[in-house]
This record gives sequence, C-alpha cells and structure tokens, in this order.
Amino acid sequence: MNKKEQLPIGVFDSGLGGLTVVRQLQRVLPHEHIIYLGDNARVPYGTRSAQTVERYAWNCADFLVRRGLKMLVIACNTASAVAVDSLRQRLEVPVLGVIRAGAKVAVKASTRKRIGVIGTAGTVGSGAYPREIKQLDSAVDVFQNAAPLLVPLVEEGWIEGDVPMQAIQRYVAPLVSEKIDVLLLGCTHYPVLQSSIETELRKMGSDALVVDSATAMAIEVSETLETYGLLRTDSFPGELRCYVTDWPDSFIDVAERFLGHSLGTVEKVDIS
Amino acid sequence: MNKKEQLPIGVFDSGLGGLTVVRQLQRVLPHEHIIYLGDNARVPYGTRSAQTVERYAWNCADFLVRRGLKMLVIACNTASAVAVDSLRQRLEVPVLGVIRAGAKVAVKASTRKRIGVIGTAGTVGSGAYPREIKQLDSAVDVFQNAAPLLVPLVEEGWIEGDVPMQAIQRYVAPLVSEKIDVLLLGCTHYPVLQSSIETELRKMGSDALVVDSATAMAIEVSETLETYGLLRTDSFPGELRCYVTDWPDSFIDVAERFLGHSLGTVEKVDIS
Repeated sequence: MNKKEQLPIGVFDSGLGGLTVVRQLQRVLPHEHIIYLGDNARVPYGTRSAQTVERYAWNCADFLVRRGLKMLVIACNTASAVAVDSLRQRLEVPVLGVIRAGAKVAVKASTRKRIGVIGTAGTVGSGAYPREIKQLDSAVDVFQNAAPLLVPLVEEGWIEGDVPMQAIQRYVAPLVSEKIDVLLLGCTHYPVLQSSIETELRKMGSDALVVDSATAMAIEVSETLETYGLLRTDSFPGELRCYVTDWPDSFIDVAERFLGHSLGTVEKVDIS
Repeated sequence: MNKKEQLPIGVFDSGLGGLTVVRQLQRVLPHEHIIYLGDNARVPYGTRSAQTVERYAWNCADFLVRRGLKMLVIACNTASAVAVDSLRQRLEVPVLGVIRAGAKVAVKASTRKRIGVIGTAGTVGSGAYPREIKQLDSAVDVFQNAAPLLVPLVEEGWIEGDVPMQAIQRYVAPLVSEKIDVLLLGCTHYPVLQSSIETELRKMGSDALVVDSATAMAIEVSETLETYGLLRTDSFPGELRCYVTDWPDSFIDVAERFLGHSLGTVEKVDIS
C-alpha cells in the first residue's frame, strides 16, 4: 500500500462547529485517519477583518501540515472564503474549502436555478457563496441572508420551540419570497437545526431542498481522494485526533453535540 | 492645576460593548479625557479560559498605561472577574473593575437582600458577581442566570418584538421566582435592552429594580477620582480617543449604537 494513503486528512475550523464536517467524513470515509484543529482561542473568525482571518488560517494550516497530511480541509466558512487560494499556492497537499463544496452540491440540486444561502454575517458579507456558485453556473440566481442568532442558539442547545422557529422564519422568509428551490446552510453549526429549518420552509409553502455544507464537504473529500488515488484501503477504522487552542469550561459537551459521539483524546496547543 | 489630573481615564473591553461605559462616563464626567481600547480582534473573552483572559487583559492594560493614565477601568466583565487583582498589584494607577462597581450599586439598591444577576455564560460561570456581592454584604442571597442570546440580539439590533421578549422572559423567569428585589445587568451590552427587561419583569409581577453595571461604573469612577483628588477641573469638554485591534465591516454602526454618538477618530493597533 502507498505510504501516503496512510496519512491523515487535516481539518480545521475557528471553533468546534467543524466537527459536524468530521462527523460526515467519518460516516462517508470510516477508514480514514483525521486530525482536527479547533482554533477556539480565537473563535469566531466571522467578525474579524480578512487580513486577520488569513493570518489565522495560515497558523492553523502550518500546525496541521507539520504533522503530515494527505489533504487539508478548511471547515470554517470565513477562512474558506478568505484563505483557500493563498493556502493552495503555499501548500503541496490538495486544499478543499467548505464554500466550494457547498456551492457544488447546491448547484447540482437546483433545477429552477434559484439558490438561497444563510450564514453568519461574515460569510454573507464576504459574498463568497454567490461568487463560487456563479463560477459553477452563471445562470443561477443567488439570494443570501445573514442569520446571526443561529450559532448562539445551537451553542446554547436552544433548538426547539418558539424562539428558534421565529429566528429561522425571520432569516428564511426573504429567501422563500424569492422562490428559491435550494436552501444552502452556509455554516457548520446549522445542520443541528436542519429539521426545524425544513419544517419552517414547508409552513411557508416552500418546497426548497435543504443542503448542508458539512455533508457536501464529505462527498467532495471522498471524490478528491479517489481522483488522487489516495483513499486508505486498510480495513481498520480510522482514528481521530483533536487539538484545540483553548480549553474553556463545558467545551466537551458542545463538541460532542456536533460530533455525535465521544471526542476521545484532545490536546491543547499554542499555534499563534 | 495638578498635571496628573489632565491625564485621561483608560477604559478597555474585549470588544465594543464597553462603549456603554464610556457613554455613562461622558454623561457623569463630561470634562474627563478618555482613551478606549476595544480588543475586538480577540472578542469574546467570555468563552476563553481564565489563563488566556488574564494574558489578554495584561496586553490591553500595557497598551493603555504606556499612553499615560490617571486611572484604569476594566469595562469587560470577564476580564474584571479574572484579572482585576493581578492588574492592581502590577500597576501604579487605581484599577476599577465593572464587577465590583455593579455589585456595590446592587447591594445599595436591595432592601429585601435578594439580588438577581444576568450575564454571559463566562461571567455567570466565574461566580464573580456572587463573590463580590457576598463580600460587601454576606446576608444577601444572589441568584444568577446566563443569558447567551442577549449579546447577539443587541449586536444584530433585534431589540424589539417577540423573540427578544421571549429570550428575556426565559432568562429572567427563574430569578423572578426567587423573588429578587434587584436585577443586575452583568454585561455591558444589556443596557440597550433595559426597558424591555423592565417590561418583562412587570408582566411577571416582579417589582425588581434594574441596575446596570455601566452606570454603576461611571458613579464609581467619579467617586474614586474625587477621593484621589484627580478630577479634571478644566472647564473644556474632555476628549475621547478610540483604539481597536481589528477593523471588521459595520464596526462603526455597532460602536455608535453603544456610544450614542459619533466615535470620532479610531485607530487600529496591534497589542498582542
């Protein structure tokens, strides 16, 4: 077996939300080793300037690459929007960003070519999803809306009842009135709210299909590894190693809500 | 006139919320010069470990002290909880933290000695308000609740209607059932929601008085400057200089919502 195949996939995010990407990777590619870095000492990236986010993304990539990788996955939407090109130029391993993965799945799913996107204020403000979608198919109309309350709702675990429903309604309604046929969840936290989002869409009379960038990313990684001949053929299950840059209270609970199972060993590291 | 009197008051916060403290300072002490530092490249502090917050607080204090100060005000609740003692030992100027100021006003206002506190998860988890209140009057019972949605609601400007009302209700109800007579707003963002919070309290049949730590801080600063003989006696209005560590989009709008007027000159600096 090719030695390179045995190397792990590196995944980083500004915090813990990227563990929803790891969860999907483990589902789609159970034999792959994964190293995850959550830069939670500097979360969130979404409120920082592009220059600062680029520097942070380089710190994260350097840390992971030094450990040996066969592929780098940017699970952070803000970092994907800002740093994917410069990281590709700088690194020898393939670099995949969650923005392009989400855009590809959304374009594939859309028949009426009207795609809605919700994300943090930072992601929406960057215009990265519309840009990426237009590059794939310039005939698509893209409608965006920032949904700043959804991340704190998910982190608080307040995912049922009137308030999350009304927040979803507020953010999704302007997209529904544009008659979107696909709604792309442009933030790694949002898959936790997916069924509530679908319920609200149906209540508003929309038949839009909900696609999330975490699942899209896992499919993209799988296809790329296959293309490069880098799939791990070993039949033993892959291992997950997690690193964080800070160690706040209640961190494990939130992390495991995203990952869907126990985190295993986690190590705190300094990357700045 | 004593030369020291002419020096500015230094104020720092993890972000822009501390501008509500500056607003109250300008109201109470219109002749004082103020330098404000918002460490918004590393906001929020509330989700970081105590060790990290202490290091950040030292960075902020060093930056301000190098510019020459007559007093240092920690407008950040998390930094006040963690770093006020070490900063006092380290610095020659008086250091005031927003926690103690809020605690003092709450204790003074309470007749039934049952005080409720709302704050971010970090502030509540630190136990700093109950500790400070108990030190002032050990006979007081303190009841706390974390209110994680209120900061993003204020930052989004979503401060009216069902969702903010229900969020306030959710966070305040457990305190009302403890029959509190004072509710202390333990976060610099919350004064923006003060009248909604009062409305919800009355709807629940509570007569609790709402006190906020920004106003409390301004009173404390005024008293301390008087005690030290450091009040600026000049009759010209004081000047405000603002520094930030990052420069995200839409920063000015949010800042001016907290400050209540135009920011004037703002400079971006590197303090880490």
